Amino acid sequence: MSYLISFEGTEGVGKSTQVNLTLAWLRQQNYAAITTREPGGTALGQKIRQILLEPSDRADLAELFLFMADRVNHVQTLILPNLAQGVIVLCDRFIDSTVAYQHYGRGLDLQMINGLNQIATQGLIPKLTFWLDLEVETGLSRAKAVSAKLDQFEALDLPFHQRLRQGFAQIAAAQPDRFMPIDASQTVEQIQAHIQQTLIAYLPDMGFKF
Amino acid sequence: MSYLISFEGTEGVGKSTQVNLTLAWLRQQNYAAITTREPGGTALGQKIRQILLEPSDRADLAELFLFMADRVNHVQTLILPNLAQGVIVLCDRFIDSTVAYQHYGRGLDLQMINGLNQIATQGLIPKLTFWLDLEVETGLSRAKAVSAKLDQFEALDLPFHQRLRQGFAQIAAAQPDRFMPIDASQTVEQIQAHIQQTLIAYLPDMGFKF
Repeated sequence: MSYLISFEGTEGVGKSTQVNLTLAWLRQQNYAAITTREPGGTALGQKIRQILLEPSDRADLAELFLFMADRVNHVQTLILPNLAQGVIVLCDRFIDSTVAYQHYGRGLDLQMINGLNQIATQGLIPKLTFWLDLEVETGLSRAKAVSAKLDQFEALDLPFHQRLRQGFAQIAAAQPDRFMPIDASQTVEQIQAHIQQTLIAYLPDMGFKF
Repeated sequence: MSYLISFEGTEGVGKSTQVNLTLAWLRQQNYAAITTREPGGTALGQKIRQILLEPSDRADLAELFLFMADRVNHVQTLILPNLAQGVIVLCDRFIDSTVAYQHYGRGLDLQMINGLNQIATQGLIPKLTFWLDLEVETGLSRAKAVSAKLDQFEALDLPFHQRLRQGFAQIAAAQPDRFMPIDASQTVEQIQAHIQQTLIAYLPDMGFKF
């Protein structure tokens, strides 16, 4: 069994922290695991990430294709080869962020996005997706506290971020077996405990144990 | 009537020279015209072009999505607005290069490429495409004479470039009304005369005349 586990949510919900804590815990359990992120999980992806996070008047559809270019390269050159070796891959944002940001946020066609995601991932879907859910105002103020300069997405207005949150809620409702909503207003420790409890049920099937 | 005219061909066939000469000639005839190119026709496109021309072990499909990101932005923010104002747009490479390089060259699926081109261009197809056709050995030696360092595509092996040429030939055969093959072993002046003779038939319908 191979395991891709994604972490999703709006800005400032604490995904990166939980990805790193989950990695440390899995390694304590002697599992081979890595963390990665989108955009920017590969050398090419880093270049694409730089372009994407800059303020720009680019076309929304161009933005979508850039995310897909990052994803294709990420899936083919990093995620699939690791999964093939039994390594658990923890990914900070994946296909659902594209649906949330580019469909629910930007208003691009959902069927088109699903079609492009299918091409870009070759059908790869996470086994589990932890959705860290939080009031967008709280998340944005956390994001602002962390970085002095907001990136392209953090700088978008409140209604945009509220559409993202509603989008994640709709994806979660449509795919309850994969999507695990977590109340991200809890403490870091509480959230991590929730993630570990969920993962424990899957551990016997998961990846390569040293 | 709005006019998008593309110039296609393998490396070193003299496209850029002919694009510029054609622009000068159209302006002499008092037509409003611009030149542009893919990849790199917009500020975003320039960043994508830099990534694309660097040597890299990126996935072929990631390359395709990068070309599409460049094209979307180019079509939406530069080509369509100019065409809407009656400006003739001369474009150095467009949709056919993607079919030639990524399908005939790289071996990616043709239907998928056509589908992505359709999304990226919103159905925009050039009124005319000048295909400058030349033995690939001659073109590559010209390209090498011009630049000391070969880019990612120029550096590919001879069979790759031969597949491109065969690809352009197949596109030309399939779309004879749009595709104008030109023997690029002729002199610059002869080629330009051929282009002008072809365009003269279209001039009454073309763009905005001062």
